[in-house]
Amino acid sequence: MVIFPEHRYYGESMPFGSREEAYKNAFTLAYLTSEQALADFAVLITELKRNASAQSCPVILFGGSYGGMLATWMRLKYPHLSIGALAASAPILQFENIVSPDTFYNIVSNNFRRESVSCFNTIRESWDVIMSLGMTNTGLSLLSKTFHLCGELKSAEDLSNWLDSAYSYLAMADYPYPADFLMPLPGNPIKEVCRRMDSLPNGTNILQRIFEGISVYYNYTGTVNCFSLDDDPHGMSGWDWQACTEMIMPMASNKNTSMFPAFEYDYKSDEEYCYKSYHVTPRPTWITTEFGGHDIKTALGTFGSNIIFSNGLLDPWSGGSVLENISDTIVALVTERGAHHLDLRAATAEDPDWLVDQRASEVKLIEGWLNRYLESKRVNFLPLQSV
Amino acid sequence: MVIFPEHRYYGESMPFGSREEAYKNAFTLAYLTSEQALADFAVLITELKRNASAQSCPVILFGGSYGGMLATWMRLKYPHLSIGALAASAPILQFENIVSPDTFYNIVSNNFRRESVSCFNTIRESWDVIMSLGMTNTGLSLLSKTFHLCGELKSAEDLSNWLDSAYSYLAMADYPYPADFLMPLPGNPIKEVCRRMDSLPNGTNILQRIFEGISVYYNYTGTVNCFSLDDDPHGMSGWDWQACTEMIMPMASNKNTSMFPAFEYDYKSDEEYCYKSYHVTPRPTWITTEFGGHDIKTALGTFGSNIIFSNGLLDPWSGGSVLENISDTIVALVTERGAHHLDLRAATAEDPDWLVDQRASEVKLIEGWLNRYLESKRVNFLPLQSV
Repeated sequence: MVIFPEHRYYGESMPFGSREEAYKNAFTLAYLTSEQALADFAVLITELKRNASAQSCPVILFGGSYGGMLATWMRLKYPHLSIGALAASAPILQFENIVSPDTFYNIVSNNFRRESVSCFNTIRESWDVIMSLGMTNTGLSLLSKTFHLCGELKSAEDLSNWLDSAYSYLAMADYPYPADFLMPLPGNPIKEVCRRMDSLPNGTNILQRIFEGISVYYNYTGTVNCFSLDDDPHGMSGWDWQACTEMIMPMASNKNTSMFPAFEYDYKSDEEYCYKSYHVTPRPTWITTEFGGHDIKTALGTFGSNIIFSNGLLDPWSGGSVLENISDTIVALVTERGAHHLDLRAATAEDPDWLVDQRASEVKLIEGWLNRYLESKRVNFLPLQSV
Repeated sequence: MVIFPEHRYYGESMPFGSREEAYKNAFTLAYLTSEQALADFAVLITELKRNASAQSCPVILFGGSYGGMLATWMRLKYPHLSIGALAASAPILQFENIVSPDTFYNIVSNNFRRESVSCFNTIRESWDVIMSLGMTNTGLSLLSKTFHLCGELKSAEDLSNWLDSAYSYLAMADYPYPADFLMPLPGNPIKEVCRRMDSLPNGTNILQRIFEGISVYYNYTGTVNCFSLDDDPHGMSGWDWQACTEMIMPMASNKNTSMFPAFEYDYKSDEEYCYKSYHVTPRPTWITTEFGGHDIKTALGTFGSNIIFSNGLLDPWSGGSVLENISDTIVALVTERGAHHLDLRAATAEDPDWLVDQRASEVKLIEGWLNRYLESKRVNFLPLQSV
């Protein structure tokens, strides 16, 4: 039996009767936490087992990204309810200073540089051009026109954020075949972005190159006439709340290694944003207090079992995940050419061999957990059978 | 360093500014849960370590009774924050149908029978006498007089509950030397109760015997002139809330084995009481969902380490605890003549040898945890030292 539970406050799982009521303010949003989500799943698993008279039936958890973090934490917090977890692209170490805050943007940048150094340089040089134009109304108008925006651009920063998102999501969705994860995209979309940027004739304006490239992300189907920057196409406002309370993941861009504008992690500005948005103050050390993270090897190694951390190194979140085996039963499966939880996507005829192999390794590990569990149950049943 | 953290909503640890506000209603009491208490301790340990620059300093948890349950659950839920726990007299299995609901009263009853069968029989026969007298005002008056009550007894049930509490607490506090745990008591207080009951001359009224016996519990110092039945001398109203929300521990009294009036576990009456008292409905399956309990061996055995479950078999709560080793590092220390978390009391000159031995075993196990932990840290430090 396969169950897809929906996380509270997302999709149709709204408390207080409606999305509007649930998202009203910090008092109604207070119940949107990872701990409450885990408790929901605990109740769900327990009730399902009870209703199906399947108390001894082993449960395996699967999750990607935040879902993979939840799967890991579920294994940590509710070890009695499952026998193992596949945590795909789960950045459980992307908190406090456990990994460098540069990690995410370094990986995105390396992905572009690997495809094409000139593409990487075009992007790196574009930010100053955008910033300069953003200083005058004429410049903002020119930017609006170049990037086919539906309305007038209000600040260069809005455009930069829009481009930043595209590059980051392209790295996450850098799959080896056409897919529609965040947006409809071709296979190896970063290669396609760089191909388009690089193939424009010499002397082409740098912003024209950027627009051609970014259109792979925002308009691969070619059906968009103009772009709106302030859309929230992925319905992420639940995540915005979570990022303002528990999920404080420090990010920075290193001037030597990143193609993005350099910036240091600025907790204060997060704090101000969150107070302005929700009248809450983030708790940046809460996740590691609740779920660990520092010295993860000791904690999970001595008090944990049966977790697969799968990661593709093209995925910018991979830097915040577990990339080395922690124990015999807590193992890392790393693929060089995988992106964000590619292994959890449905199998396709276009899957490369290394992806087929990765999934086979996962199945084999899970079969091992199941066999050991069923073996232990058989031993337990013996005394009864021999009566 | 030894820290005694106080549980929220108890003692001086009151939210909302005062005890009155904190205990106002279900909305203010909603934050009195075992999960919130564990989270408090998690934050406390994390902050203490951070402030003392002692992140690698190993932490051992100690707790008795509910505190022992919290220590176990802390080990289960926050394995990264401690390296082991001594859970003394922690009835983590006293939920749902994991152990028989008769267990508690059977143990209390056996303790009295072991001291004196006639004492056991006196108590067993007393309930009907009390119940009969309770049916008339003259009878209630007689009961008030016999038991030196300060006010007029309103119902036989009030008196029965008062006696029930005394017998149960006597079993919990059946220590081998004089102590003042719940009340000031002599050593082996049940022996003293039965000695007093049995030593009254033949023909003494049964209720007079009961009063003489029970006075060991309620008036060992001899300073009480009259007794009030509705006192809450142990400040248990926080527990009353917890027992109405999470801590649903089914209790029953078996007519064949118990010296108490026979009754079956009646969840409905708990539910009614809790709704009347707090406008809440208990969640009887929540604790096992959150912390496990069913199939504890598999859960703790495969995903746990370094817990001592210590229990004295005189303690009526011992029946709901872990009395057998679960793994190499999750061990049961059982003493035949121990009572409720006797091992956590300060050492005294009167400690019997078996108690001295029990504490020595605990210290040895904890030393083993510490040595293995420090050993693993030394190995981790080596590469740095050799640079």
